[in-house]
Amino acid sequence: MTLHHLVIADIVRRALHEDLGQGYDITTDSLIPADHRGKAVMRTRQDGVLAGLEAAFAAFHMLDKTLKITAHAKDGENLAAGQDILSVEGLSRSILTGERTALNFMTHLSGIATQTRAYVEAVKGTKARITCTRKTLPGLRTLQKYAIRRGGGQNHRFGLGDAVLIKDNHIALAGGIDIALEAARKNAGHMLKIELEVDTLEQLEDALQYKFDVVLLDNMAPDMLRQAVTLVDGRILTEASGGVTLDTVRAIAETGVDMISVGALTHSVTALDIGLDVS
Amino acid sequence: MTLHHLVIADIVRRALHEDLGQGYDITTDSLIPADHRGKAVMRTRQDGVLAGLEAAFAAFHMLDKTLKITAHAKDGENLAAGQDILSVEGLSRSILTGERTALNFMTHLSGIATQTRAYVEAVKGTKARITCTRKTLPGLRTLQKYAIRRGGGQNHRFGLGDAVLIKDNHIALAGGIDIALEAARKNAGHMLKIELEVDTLEQLEDALQYKFDVVLLDNMAPDMLRQAVTLVDGRILTEASGGVTLDTVRAIAETGVDMISVGALTHSVTALDIGLDVS
Amino acid sequence: MTLHHLVIADIVRRALHEDLGQGYDITTDSLIPADHRGKAVMRTRQDGVLAGLEAAFAAFHMLDKTLKITAHAKDGENLAAGQDILSVEGLSRSILTGERTALNFMTHLSGIATQTRAYVEAVKGTKARITCTRKTLPGLRTLQKYAIRRGGGQNHRFGLGDAVLIKDNHIALAGGIDIALEAARKNAGHMLKIELEVDTLEQLEDALQYKFDVVLLDNMAPDMLRQAVTLVDGRILTEASGGVTLDTVRAIAETGVDMISVGALTHSVTALDIGLDVS
Amino acid sequence: MTLHHLVIADIVRRALHEDLGQGYDITTDSLIPADHRGKAVMRTRQDGVLAGLEAAFAAFHMLDKTLKITAHAKDGENLAAGQDILSVEGLSRSILTGERTALNFMTHLSGIATQTRAYVEAVKGTKARITCTRKTLPGLRTLQKYAIRRGGGQNHRFGLGDAVLIKDNHIALAGGIDIALEAARKNAGHMLKIELEVDTLEQLEDALQYKFDVVLLDNMAPDMLRQAVTLVDGRILTEASGGVTLDTVRAIAETGVDMISVGALTHSVTALDIGLDVS
Amino acid sequence: MTLHHLVIADIVRRALHEDLGQGYDITTDSLIPADHRGKAVMRTRQDGVLAGLEAAFAAFHMLDKTLKITAHAKDGENLAAGQDILSVEGLSRSILTGERTALNFMTHLSGIATQTRAYVEAVKGTKARITCTRKTLPGLRTLQKYAIRRGGGQNHRFGLGDAVLIKDNHIALAGGIDIALEAARKNAGHMLKIELEVDTLEQLEDALQYKFDVVLLDNMAPDMLRQAVTLVDGRILTEASGGVTLDTVRAIAETGVDMISVGALTHSVTALDIGLDVS
Amino acid sequence: MTLHHLVIADIVRRALHEDLGQGYDITTDSLIPADHRGKAVMRTRQDGVLAGLEAAFAAFHMLDKTLKITAHAKDGENLAAGQDILSVEGLSRSILTGERTALNFMTHLSGIATQTRAYVEAVKGTKARITCTRKTLPGLRTLQKYAIRRGGGQNHRFGLGDAVLIKDNHIALAGGIDIALEAARKNAGHMLKIELEVDTLEQLEDALQYKFDVVLLDNMAPDMLRQAVTLVDGRILTEASGGVTLDTVRAIAETGVDMISVGALTHSVTALDIGLDVS
Repeated sequence: MTLHHLVIADIVRRALHEDLGQGYDITTDSLIPADHRGKAVMRTRQDGVLAGLEAAFAAFHMLDKTLKITAHAKDGENLAAGQDILSVEGLSRSILTGERTALNFMTHLSGIATQTRAYVEAVKGTKARITCTRKTLPGLRTLQKYAIRRGGGQNHRFGLGDAVLIKDNHIALAGGIDIALEAARKNAGHMLKIELEVDTLEQLEDALQYKFDVVLLDNMAPDMLRQAVTLVDGRILTEASGGVTLDTVRAIAETGVDMISVGALTHSVTALDIGLDVS
Repeated sequence: MTLHHLVIADIVRRALHEDLGQGYDITTDSLIPADHRGKAVMRTRQDGVLAGLEAAFAAFHMLDKTLKITAHAKDGENLAAGQDILSVEGLSRSILTGERTALNFMTHLSGIATQTRAYVEAVKGTKARITCTRKTLPGLRTLQKYAIRRGGGQNHRFGLGDAVLIKDNHIALAGGIDIALEAARKNAGHMLKIELEVDTLEQLEDALQYKFDVVLLDNMAPDMLRQAVTLVDGRILTEASGGVTLDTVRAIAETGVDMISVGALTHSVTALDIGLDVS
Repeated sequence: MTLHHLVIADIVRRALHEDLGQGYDITTDSLIPADHRGKAVMRTRQDGVLAGLEAAFAAFHMLDKTLKITAHAKDGENLAAGQDILSVEGLSRSILTGERTALNFMTHLSGIATQTRAYVEAVKGTKARITCTRKTLPGLRTLQKYAIRRGGGQNHRFGLGDAVLIKDNHIALAGGIDIALEAARKNAGHMLKIELEVDTLEQLEDALQYKFDVVLLDNMAPDMLRQAVTLVDGRILTEASGGVTLDTVRAIAETGVDMISVGALTHSVTALDIGLDVS
Repeated sequence: MTLHHLVIADIVRRALHEDLGQGYDITTDSLIPADHRGKAVMRTRQDGVLAGLEAAFAAFHMLDKTLKITAHAKDGENLAAGQDILSVEGLSRSILTGERTALNFMTHLSGIATQTRAYVEAVKGTKARITCTRKTLPGLRTLQKYAIRRGGGQNHRFGLGDAVLIKDNHIALAGGIDIALEAARKNAGHMLKIELEVDTLEQLEDALQYKFDVVLLDNMAPDMLRQAVTLVDGRILTEASGGVTLDTVRAIAETGVDMISVGALTHSVTALDIGLDVS
Repeated sequence: MTLHHLVIADIVRRALHEDLGQGYDITTDSLIPADHRGKAVMRTRQDGVLAGLEAAFAAFHMLDKTLKITAHAKDGENLAAGQDILSVEGLSRSILTGERTALNFMTHLSGIATQTRAYVEAVKGTKARITCTRKTLPGLRTLQKYAIRRGGGQNHRFGLGDAVLIKDNHIALAGGIDIALEAARKNAGHMLKIELEVDTLEQLEDALQYKFDVVLLDNMAPDMLRQAVTLVDGRILTEASGGVTLDTVRAIAETGVDMISVGALTHSVTALDIGLDVS
Repeated sequence: MTLHHLVIADIVRRALHEDLGQGYDITTDSLIPADHRGKAVMRTRQDGVLAGLEAAFAAFHMLDKTLKITAHAKDGENLAAGQDILSVEGLSRSILTGERTALNFMTHLSGIATQTRAYVEAVKGTKARITCTRKTLPGLRTLQKYAIRRGGGQNHRFGLGDAVLIKDNHIALAGGIDIALEAARKNAGHMLKIELEVDTLEQLEDALQYKFDVVLLDNMAPDMLRQAVTLVDGRILTEASGGVTLDTVRAIAETGVDMISVGALTHSVTALDIGLDVS
């Protein structure tokens, strides 16, 4: 599950430009001799799951191709507080100027991976898998989805073209579940899956008469979810969504659903506390 | 404190492209008649502070210039759960396709403004003001800093060129506080302020012999902060930083510091729960 | 199946810049008075299927927002030689300067739609549907895929992330069909379909033991295709590919396959002959 | 006739993004071990003329700077079916992920070069040279024009600013050939050539009273072309255009015209069949 | 000689971003009420020639589409000190924020047009025409060349592909004038002119044996230029270059050369003094 | 005061594209063998101050990564006419094609540094320092401000967000100096300086009642400047501006002002005469 340099180059460049809009780091360039060399270590101050190594590398490397960067951990790895993540060695100016951008990527993405893994661990032993949503932060979707994978989660749709997801508004405006599903099958091509959102067991029973791939069971309590799973009886995949938290996810998983989607994994991220220590 | 369209156009366009990479919304375009018209209202489901109206407008407008968008609240306004924020009226396809992008901006930025105001309220009656840091999410700094202002906070540096901030690493590598400050004054130009970070009262006393504008009191407990404020005695501005939370901010403010900076305001944002209801 | 302005804006702008790199149309600007107004009609000189109206509109509109453009046909419509497509009225300079860019889009995309419909017509009455491939021209994929839809075809994958397509090289390097399919199912998420390429009936029989969504029957003669379809027996979708032409497509469709993919639809396009007549 | 990396970098990057919009190659990344190394050879399956080596290099190289790429042929070289073009060696994932983009460039550009050379060969022994037009595919003009040169053709105008080409509409709106030519000479600067389109021998005779550089003889049959060449008598260059095909080009060349322009060379390209074999 | 919006949009947007990198005009946004409306007039404080109206319009318009902008003069027009150029009316914040960007374009481009016209006037009555070079400021070539035309000058090459210009280094490396000219004619296509630089009369005599379009007489004193013109005897165009100033240009023109190229017109520009007065 | 590659990459790429829009250097590519190697030296023909080395490096390097470039001087260094600046060695085609772009950057930026140093020298012995303005050329601000620093000057604001500068229009619209300054202090954040423009001594006296950081003494004659300096009496910084020239700057400096700002340093630049000699 590579994260190609090509895919992150633009956002890393933009992030560096946010810091270097005036063309220089007035503090560092004024105080540190141009040829001073040093070394620094990026180190986590909390337990967590690492994600964002490539972006941190890119941030330092775009700034100064002569920096020597060494990874001490891998994306997806469980980190213990105090553990080294990467070292960077070379011109001190470059290290200090690049520090914040590298950290901003890594603390955010590791925050996502850490929280994702917490959910994945919480449902261990059930067949449920954790997945994300399109509730992502503008411009960061590809990176956030990558961090979800590194935390052990799975990706839902990346955009509005790579799968069909029929919600209540769509059904209402299309004129009914049958019409909606037929239109979807006709237009969607043979490589796209179709998911249908239902809010009640009645809707679910109605929908199961027709052919589609995944049912989104929206905002159902565990009891109702269990009945829904029984109704579906393995014919299609089931996905629970709506206000899922670390406190409720286990009970939801135990209803037997296949997938649990959690918007907060990407829309409400707590950064992992990682710092850079200059030695 | 305008947010110019020009400044957000790029990030809004990128966000829309994240959803429309394949060129269409396969669900909406398959199910909704091309000429169907409808109306939807964006409404908050939680109390909070609004920010991001311009970005939501831009998201809908870039997608479809014929949509009629009406604001029912203003950025910076306190919202009550259930309150309408904006209405959008026109082609139903455009409303459904643009919904998620518009919401992703607004829930994130309102989350920042809401949390900022909570800090601002917490220090009410003291002279302390709340400020942000450069711990922002890649590509979103300008927007995040705007949301801070809408919440009643103040902006710290936007980048590495618009003020000098001398940290311990800089002092160590420069060879001392006096040398560092002299180099900063010599290079920085007459329009840039100089801030110096100190960790102890001894460092502070040493530093106060020299001329600079703001002192950053890093990771000091309220007692020590109070002593620092006494030492400074109004000669320069004082800024407290380091692990500030809603629980601790009042005590910090009561020490008499001028500014309190809070990284979590931008690096660990909880989205405000806002939804779009199609009517 | 809208084609959003947003999605074509970049490529239309680039195309205009190819003509206006020096900033002007030396011929038109030297010879035509700045305020001369005229009218022109875009008209097909061949029978065909229209695609690209939005791009032609955008080309004229980006050049001169005051041009009045009127469509006389719709994308996806069958055109008869001599039929009017659109009129453009306004400053003569703008019409002449934009002509070639508008035509370059429309002749190419209508060429694709026309050829696609020829294949669709050729298989009429069978259940086979025509689909495209990733053999598209650099930078034009979204537009070419749109033209395929307008011609009555269906889209295959848009990129390497929106479905799994396991080819022989993948199987060989993964270590067998079973291992490959298991890895795909584990990594791909619940919203992605999995397609597997087989070259022989033996491979097909082997593969059918496992769970996947679509089988790509590569380079099989009609007889073998028929046997493959019998073997599959409706359990999964079948897709025939490899050197399909207008001469052979009917015989392939009559084998009972669900899909027929044709690379030439996008990699070897004959432009539809459309011209602009100034009146 | 170098093709600078700088000039193709943008279009190659865009093409890679078309495949990697979601940030990964779900198939390859799921099935192939990250450190598996392999080798592949790009090989033509048809006779033809090579063009696009630089673009194929760039596609692989932008994806993975560690790939070792070796050319076995040169742009402009005649290829025999089965002949090796380039080898690529390194991480198997990178080879498989980059394959289609590299091929999409090379098959298209070699298709142009191959067809161009067919025309060039067809007129061998006459003084006529083959040239292209501005009927190019959006965003690909620079590359297509390069392929024309590699096939032995010559480039006509790149855009609307690098030469004057006066067509009937221009003459009509300017108010006559004399007025049009005078305006062109006055505005065009001393480094730009002026070409004038004529449809009849009468127009040609009229035009020859004035000073310009090239005459475009549009849609004339060989007999009329021969008379036109006689009338011109070497005073200016003659260019024949309009519906030229491989069947008619020899007869046109034998009329003695200097140039023959062929729009189909770039607007209706048949890809050369080139494949990548993993060894 | 239109200057298309499309062609200047990028550079105007970049210029505005230089001022609005932090997203706001801290002074104006802090001090001026959001709904305050005003009017301002752009007025020249020196005699000169106007150029850059479109860019100034674009600067204000990109910032605020509701501003009402009215032109009181035309590009290319002679301005008298004190003369009004354009008025802008609307939100005062937008006027003040856009002022500097609009002026920076207009003062620079009018500076070029003004100086160009001074040269054009200086050679009045001779047949010599004034032309520019490729010594332009990075990123501004299209705009600078436009200003040259507005001042009454002519454009030389826009880039390295739209004409052949053979300098001494080229001749030396190619192996002689004859070889160089033959290679140029063979490769350049029929729509490109060929210019050859000579430094001495001997070189000129040698060169005149061969076929090319323009001779660049580099750094020759008026006497030598006169002999060169005599030698050429109208067979090709003559262009004088090298250290031309307003003091020397008349003498050079009187030698009978066709063109005089002046690098300083674009590389050493004195801005025209234009200001914006708020009323 | 590093100039990061990242910060200049875009403008250097754009500049190269201005020359290579058609994809090649028709002259060089036609005449010089592809494998011919050579060497060239960039050399100043005038005394001056060097600036722009990084941009010249980048221009050659972006074009051809195999060129070997060696610097013989440093940005900020005083150059004597005839002195070598850099050598470039490698493929002759690359050297000739990149020459003009590299020179256009270096002659412009060195022109700025040279003129800045002339002003700095002129005020030697006084405490006045020379600073620039926002009157910069579109798209070149970061580079021009860098050249100012290399010449020994200081930078004023980079944009509208990094300091407050209150001019007469602002005061008038805000409703008075006191109201304006209060609004500025309230909104500007603790890291921004506030500068106020005054035109008369009365305004200055009025203003000095309030708290701000720098006063801009606009268009005052030396006598009045001296009185203003006396009035200010060291409480805040003083900046003189308005029509400053090399002839008047010494007298202004001797009034005791801290800063003198000179718009012409960036808006009216005379290029330093630097050439490239191929050996």
